[in-house]
Amino acid sequence: MTHTHTHTTHAAHGHVDHGGPIDSPILVEVTRGGMVESVHRGRACLVDAAGHRLAQWGDVTAPVYPRSAIAALQALPLVDSGALDAFELGDSELALACASHSGEIRHTRLLESWVKRLGLSADDLDCGPQVPTDPDTAADLIRDGQAPTVFHNTGAGKHAGLLTTIRHRNEPVKGYTRFDHPAQQRLLGVLEQMSGQDLSQAPWGVDHCGLPTIGIPLEAVAYAMARLADPVDLPDARASAANRIVKAWKAHPHLIGGKDSFDTRMMQASGGRVLVKSGAEGIACAVLPKEGVAIALKIEDGSARARDVAMAALIRATDALNEEQWSRAADLLIVPQLNRAGREVGVIQAAEGWPVLEA
Amino acid sequence: MTHTHTHTTHAAHGHVDHGGPIDSPILVEVTRGGMVESVHRGRACLVDAAGHRLAQWGDVTAPVYPRSAIAALQALPLVDSGALDAFELGDSELALACASHSGEIRHTRLLESWVKRLGLSADDLDCGPQVPTDPDTAADLIRDGQAPTVFHNTGAGKHAGLLTTIRHRNEPVKGYTRFDHPAQQRLLGVLEQMSGQDLSQAPWGVDHCGLPTIGIPLEAVAYAMARLADPVDLPDARASAANRIVKAWKAHPHLIGGKDSFDTRMMQASGGRVLVKSGAEGIACAVLPKEGVAIALKIEDGSARARDVAMAALIRATDALNEEQWSRAADLLIVPQLNRAGREVGVIQAAEGWPVLEA
Repeated sequence: MTHTHTHTTHAAHGHVDHGGPIDSPILVEVTRGGMVESVHRGRACLVDAAGHRLAQWGDVTAPVYPRSAIAALQALPLVDSGALDAFELGDSELALACASHSGEIRHTRLLESWVKRLGLSADDLDCGPQVPTDPDTAADLIRDGQAPTVFHNTGAGKHAGLLTTIRHRNEPVKGYTRFDHPAQQRLLGVLEQMSGQDLSQAPWGVDHCGLPTIGIPLEAVAYAMARLADPVDLPDARASAANRIVKAWKAHPHLIGGKDSFDTRMMQASGGRVLVKSGAEGIACAVLPKEGVAIALKIEDGSARARDVAMAALIRATDALNEEQWSRAADLLIVPQLNRAGREVGVIQAAEGWPVLEA
Repeated sequence: MTHTHTHTTHAAHGHVDHGGPIDSPILVEVTRGGMVESVHRGRACLVDAAGHRLAQWGDVTAPVYPRSAIAALQALPLVDSGALDAFELGDSELALACASHSGEIRHTRLLESWVKRLGLSADDLDCGPQVPTDPDTAADLIRDGQAPTVFHNTGAGKHAGLLTTIRHRNEPVKGYTRFDHPAQQRLLGVLEQMSGQDLSQAPWGVDHCGLPTIGIPLEAVAYAMARLADPVDLPDARASAANRIVKAWKAHPHLIGGKDSFDTRMMQASGGRVLVKSGAEGIACAVLPKEGVAIALKIEDGSARARDVAMAALIRATDALNEEQWSRAADLLIVPQLNRAGREVGVIQAAEGWPVLEA
């Protein structure tokens, strides 16, 4: 599993592949009064663990940056290297490694003790500080006169997970977010294995939290995620790690996001029937453990509101949730638009007639 | 100028015209590392005060909700009814009536004394409270344990302007945001006159701040705004009101938005060569007073980041600003994307080759 890819031609200011427009049909409509005011385009697919496309919309072969929507894949080495067990960490930490947490105290306390257990401190995390995405926690910090820390960074769990494996393998902590650091090359190898792609020439960029993110065809992202749910083709240690990750993800919806986040609310409503992880720039994945399939979605314009509504509509189309479960998530499927006085003045919802899955 | 249109078929939950996709080419690219990660589509036009299209991209005949991008048009009755002078208000209040202010103290103080001068109070404004869009002011409120008020609502100046005319004409204050209130029917008439459109059957919706917003073809929005800059065809009182609005708008860029807002920064950089007003859901207008032309823009997906970058690119294409002026606004034209650690990891900018204006 050693990789030594170098991508020196793909630095932040190097060659940019502008390509042509990628086929992206209208998936989401924003309606206000008597008119559709805005629309969002995107592409999506439903893929099983054998790589079969069960459904697709738009060009699913063009690449996306999967950002943190594939955090669960990036947690594989944390488990199968033995690092998680060596540091006596549990499912809570594993869930946080798969998360974009909202900076609530329950997240940051866990992260602080975790990093301490590694013999490291806040200074060793290269994700940068971030105002918590949970507005209540953000307001608490202001009231208390405290600045946000790296532990409030929504990607801090992924960083702690990486550092756990790095400490376990005695690799250098310094520079661990660099593309050529052994930890990043290891992740590249994991993504190649799980997605079945040669990523040696793939474009790459740097995520909000400082980690490299690799351009991967959308359908290959879905395939890689489906294999987490049904790891039958994987080597034993990796298959076992996949099972453990799915278990932790399922057990801790609140650690994956936060009290008002789409991912957390959708998973809580589904009672474990669906695992969801959203990423920046309109990317999202969902895993249906029982069916052994996964959804990958990219909103063309990067919109979060469209990403969430489109994902809810895709999950709805799979029939995985019953009506009682949907009654707890109705406002995720048709999102009311309120004005400042609290009156409903419009809705965000899937475009008429989308999506339909063949029976 | 009396109008008695009723649009009972266009209530928030009534008929919605879904139409087909509206031709909207790619205007903006979001690049990260070696790949264009997201794109934004939209339509735009440059129109003069005679209604000539000088340039256009996409379908400019399809309607948009102009939202608060046409606040300057909505301020016309405030001036030509004599209300502004009767209450001894000045250019500062007039600028605020054309604004989406950021809730800074300089905005809210002016609004409080203005509303008091009308013999009214915060309770009479139907815009609802809003957390200030200026993050520093929002943090100050939290630190001081104060809740946001209606004066912090970004549209409060528009509401104060409406109430000024209503008080001057002894119309009922209660229910002034209703579609059938005389003040709203008057605004509908102003929009019909300025845009040259019959809006009696136009779709409408309710804006964030509670006011009706009317569906108007994009090119007609630009035409109406161009006539503010060159009101030669308008009746004397309205032409004089247009001149006064343009003067107030030009004199107070800080009141139109706020210290970090695109509109304020673009206007300050231009030294009065361009007047800009953005609205919700990716709508924006710009007026070039010297040239007597206006730009109207609608981003298909409603994105604010794309709206601002596309507007900067359109203004750039008009050649109205010199290089020294652009040096103060370079980061509006090519917007750096920073990660949480402050490193530049991408840019938002106009799509390659867009826009080009014929000489």
